[in-house]
Amino acid sequence: MPAGQLSRLFDPRSIAVVGASANEAKPGFQILRALEPFHGAVHAVNPRGGTVMGRPVHRSLADIPEPVDLVALVLPARHSLAVLEEAAAIGAGAAFMVSGGFGETGAAGAALEADIASACRAGGIRLLGPNTSGFLRPSRGLACTFLPAAAELRPGPIGIVAQSGGINLTLAMMANAEGLGVSLAVGLGNAADLGIAETLDYLAADPETRAIAVHLEGVEDGRAVFDAVRAAVPAKPVIALPVGKADLTGFAESHTGALMGNHRLTRSALRQAGAVVVETLDDALDAARALAMTRLKPARDPGIGVLTGQAGPGLLMTDTLRQAGVSVPELAPATVARIAGALPPLTYMRNPVDTGRPGDNLGAVIEALAEDGRIDAILAYALIEGGPLDVGGAALEAAGKTSKPMVFATAGVPSETAGPVDALRRAGVPVFLVPDRAARAMAAMVEDARGRANAERDGTDAAPPGIAPPLAGPVDEDAAKSLVSAYGIATPRRTVCRNRAEAEAARAAIPGPAVAKVLDPAILHKSDVGGVHTGIETAGALDSALDAIDRISSAGYLIEEMAPDGLDLIIGARNDGSFGPTVLLGLGGTAAEAIDDVAVALAPLGGGEVDRMIDVLAGRALFGPWRGAPAPDRAAIRDAVAGIARLIVEHPEIAEIDLNPVRAHAGGAIALDALIVLRRA
Amino acid sequence: MPAGQLSRLFDPRSIAVVGASANEAKPGFQILRALEPFHGAVHAVNPRGGTVMGRPVHRSLADIPEPVDLVALVLPARHSLAVLEEAAAIGAGAAFMVSGGFGETGAAGAALEADIASACRAGGIRLLGPNTSGFLRPSRGLACTFLPAAAELRPGPIGIVAQSGGINLTLAMMANAEGLGVSLAVGLGNAADLGIAETLDYLAADPETRAIAVHLEGVEDGRAVFDAVRAAVPAKPVIALPVGKADLTGFAESHTGALMGNHRLTRSALRQAGAVVVETLDDALDAARALAMTRLKPARDPGIGVLTGQAGPGLLMTDTLRQAGVSVPELAPATVARIAGALPPLTYMRNPVDTGRPGDNLGAVIEALAEDGRIDAILAYALIEGGPLDVGGAALEAAGKTSKPMVFATAGVPSETAGPVDALRRAGVPVFLVPDRAARAMAAMVEDARGRANAERDGTDAAPPGIAPPLAGPVDEDAAKSLVSAYGIATPRRTVCRNRAEAEAARAAIPGPAVAKVLDPAILHKSDVGGVHTGIETAGALDSALDAIDRISSAGYLIEEMAPDGLDLIIGARNDGSFGPTVLLGLGGTAAEAIDDVAVALAPLGGGEVDRMIDVLAGRALFGPWRGAPAPDRAAIRDAVAGIARLIVEHPEIAEIDLNPVRAHAGGAIALDALIVLRRA
Repeated sequence: MPAGQLSRLFDPRSIAVVGASANEAKPGFQILRALEPFHGAVHAVNPRGGTVMGRPVHRSLADIPEPVDLVALVLPARHSLAVLEEAAAIGAGAAFMVSGGFGETGAAGAALEADIASACRAGGIRLLGPNTSGFLRPSRGLACTFLPAAAELRPGPIGIVAQSGGINLTLAMMANAEGLGVSLAVGLGNAADLGIAETLDYLAADPETRAIAVHLEGVEDGRAVFDAVRAAVPAKPVIALPVGKADLTGFAESHTGALMGNHRLTRSALRQAGAVVVETLDDALDAARALAMTRLKPARDPGIGVLTGQAGPGLLMTDTLRQAGVSVPELAPATVARIAGALPPLTYMRNPVDTGRPGDNLGAVIEALAEDGRIDAILAYALIEGGPLDVGGAALEAAGKTSKPMVFATAGVPSETAGPVDALRRAGVPVFLVPDRAARAMAAMVEDARGRANAERDGTDAAPPGIAPPLAGPVDEDAAKSLVSAYGIATPRRTVCRNRAEAEAARAAIPGPAVAKVLDPAILHKSDVGGVHTGIETAGALDSALDAIDRISSAGYLIEEMAPDGLDLIIGARNDGSFGPTVLLGLGGTAAEAIDDVAVALAPLGGGEVDRMIDVLAGRALFGPWRGAPAPDRAAIRDAVAGIARLIVEHPEIAEIDLNPVRAHAGGAIALDALIVLRRA
Repeated sequence: MPAGQLSRLFDPRSIAVVGASANEAKPGFQILRALEPFHGAVHAVNPRGGTVMGRPVHRSLADIPEPVDLVALVLPARHSLAVLEEAAAIGAGAAFMVSGGFGETGAAGAALEADIASACRAGGIRLLGPNTSGFLRPSRGLACTFLPAAAELRPGPIGIVAQSGGINLTLAMMANAEGLGVSLAVGLGNAADLGIAETLDYLAADPETRAIAVHLEGVEDGRAVFDAVRAAVPAKPVIALPVGKADLTGFAESHTGALMGNHRLTRSALRQAGAVVVETLDDALDAARALAMTRLKPARDPGIGVLTGQAGPGLLMTDTLRQAGVSVPELAPATVARIAGALPPLTYMRNPVDTGRPGDNLGAVIEALAEDGRIDAILAYALIEGGPLDVGGAALEAAGKTSKPMVFATAGVPSETAGPVDALRRAGVPVFLVPDRAARAMAAMVEDARGRANAERDGTDAAPPGIAPPLAGPVDEDAAKSLVSAYGIATPRRTVCRNRAEAEAARAAIPGPAVAKVLDPAILHKSDVGGVHTGIETAGALDSALDAIDRISSAGYLIEEMAPDGLDLIIGARNDGSFGPTVLLGLGGTAAEAIDDVAVALAPLGGGEVDRMIDVLAGRALFGPWRGAPAPDRAAIRDAVAGIARLIVEHPEIAEIDLNPVRAHAGGAIALDALIVLRRA
């Protein structure tokens, strides 16, 4: 869809309000009031005619004597279909629907919503809503919403797309209260037509927007959102606030009619696409403020130099950075020597650098920090004390001396802080009035830099899927393992046996102890029913095992060699309804299962993304040397996850594949079991 | 120490500044400037004499013609001892030392600091500092610090005690910028004399203080802080921000000379004492704002009713509460029916309650919520839209209709929000301008209510220690188990054997398989060296086991019965240098060890505290029924942890005791191994 048509929605020259009202208590009046500052034309429409706010009310859209870009519908759900048809007839390009009463109310509402979406498609109309509060475009004087207060918001660099109209307005109001302007702020509501992905595309192309904040509840087109974020990130930072870690399904459905979806998958996909994922509204705006001003260069592990006039806040900021996984590297000896020349001898200088009460030396210290090769950006804090010390001026001068990004935090009484804060922000330095908020904003900048570096490295992501013949019918363990091994994942040497003689011959051919398993695609959990027997070293032991297997199935036996000891992993993949092909990596064992210690990502993926999945696991220490045992083979684990990712992309007929366990040891990783479930035809 | 003497520090009638200066760039001038609004007398002292700010400078403390309560020393470390002796000579009751150059700089500084502390004790002087920025007492016009801006701060209900002078000033400035006043804000610095615990006592008794925020880095007198928090909490809420989750030892020592200590233990002890533990400065102030206005009744699991005018923010608030472990219970059917009478049919009413754009119905909904027996407090959100809807007025009226606490959040343009926000706050309703911040403040109120309920329930905490004869010499496994079983913890039936004949007789007396272990107090990790052999069912198997044991020690054998299968726990206790007797509970097994899944608490403790320790564990699901197996015996686990807590309290000669593993099963919990390390004499 060309941005050209969405511009008739978000950058219209003329708007018609259908449902205009002279009653001040009604949204049909309030939207006209909110539209008063709009730079373009506004037409009021109501079958009853009359006048509102001194202007004539047209009895229908057809009566408007000029072209109309955007039709705002402020009327009950049941009337909306007819009005959209009228809008199409006069060549309107876009519509916005406030009213609820659609998908969020149940089946009848969902049917009406589907009809409306069809009517829009047929009539060439892009629709925002229904069931939302609209959008804000302050640079055009455009508050397309029923809140008159919204018309007061200032223009600026922050673009917002929120699944909830209420969150959109809340974020825009918060930004405004903190002196931050908005380029375009959109609340999607039920998203019958326009969704997150296309709105992201629009914001990414919008010259006024320098950073994008996105709020998500349930994501029904996860793969499209992933693609849109990934496409936006090289040009514009994307900050994402996915809500719904707790299960709030009932309320969420009543809200926009969307399912909550898998929160872990949503978060992981956003991060994988390069978004900065945050947990709170404050963090979203703080990250947007900083990233709209400056971005770090793409880097896998940027180093931050921390400088502070007061040790306690410096400790808090450093603790905040470290907990967020950000590197605060020790400075080079030459840097420490330079700093020592500028500071009293008693302070700490290795990073963080404790300047003591900052004065003229601040500039020298920042310069020294910025020239250290391990430092990619600087986080500085100093109280504005209200005396002769010009902290703001010193910081401003220092900022001018380096091209490396700086984030500045301060505190003081408002009469003393307002001037310096404003001057620094005008000079392009993000400033915060709370030290740990500044540290979290810096951590967001680091996340943004990492996201871009990861995208650059993971060339494999872009590999086009190959061609593989689809599987059919039930798939037994041997067939599943054969498919898995075709994707480069090791499996045990094994023999399919139809009778005891074959089984004994297969066992005898294995040098060490053997495993005997039932081979029956109808049995999904073999161990639970006594279908797996390990450590078989004699013909007699095999006989006992086969006796047990015969009691549960006569389909056949699988005789395998045993694997070496090691770390048991769970590696799986599925075709998700929202995000498409996805992979999962987790630790085996009861405790890991009890804490649900798994990482997920979208397929295809490269080895770097597998490393990041491992970093997410609580039990990640087990992937290194542990208690004297050597580390499991990281390359083999990377290949196994990347291999199953390629497999699930190339086999859309598979609903789910589980390798549980994959035994990882110093010399490789081997899938000891494999289970494939096909999608229903 | 009577509050009477500390009142000469924090509520002085007269202050002398030693090191007064006419040079505006020096702290000796800036502190006089900051003291200008002080309601009491201020005397300048400098051996050089002269005048400063139009007042005469005394050449020594002895020259001051009036009694002096507080002496502020603004001079290099090396001069401080002499001045403190002079201060004692004129009967000053308190001193405040700005300068650094003491314990934070190394051994020589630490020795000087110890001398100063001795001089203060000898002279009857309470000392704040050294190496800190002082304190603020706005209601007395008292900014005892070198920051002139501090004199502008407004008085109010928030008490602050911060280990860092910089954090103290930052928090006070932040509070002021958000319209919140401070009663007494203290930065401790090196705390050579006055520490966190006594300052907490003072704030708890201070009638101006309604909520206390405490910032901690390293805690050297952890038990005293625990006792002070516990004593304060029934009267005043305590909000704690312990910094230092990441290891920042080097920088922290350079800062106040204190070690960082065990962050997990610090956090756990604060929570156990009833403090609300927070992670950020914003959360600390938000919790203080709410709790200074209103507290919930003590309750183990308060239920929160959430009401929202906009669904998206309501979902975010509910998600925030749920993630914080706060209950948002489903409303009683009668409540839903009442609410349904006040709201349009399409909204969600079960909790959260989605009012849609709130109007006159807001009061009726809040009344209905407040009368639901499952609801202990209300969290409400509504945008202030700027139209005819008086959201603030409706909320104000509604707040008046219930005695249950309410927290209100809103957003809007400042010109529209300022009035309603101010009116609600004056009416005693905590208001926030960010919905998820309001939810975190409500979670803090719930934590406060839980802390008090837990203290009420855990009567065992107060049980006086019994008298037990101290252990001496190395303690072998049998002796350790005998001690453990004296505290009510089950141990396996066992026999100490000096030779093979005794061992075979002991084995034969056990009905099932037996365990043979080396019994040698010099061997701490028996399994690692081949000293533990399980599943012994025959005389031959025992012989092989004893052969192996003989190869590592000839001290003796322990023959035990085997335990049933179950969940392996680690239960331990130690006498901590800062917090005194403490206990630890963790899950056994490699994965649990890799994620360091343990909970800690101070001893003594009751069963309720053990339940809270279990709730902290990532693997807590394993303490319930798991995958078809029955739950392990919770009462036996409670008794084991409480028993070892009593043991460590009654045996101060023990450095550390470890029961690893304790096997918990449906019928009990049994300590399979026990290791005791005594403190060095």
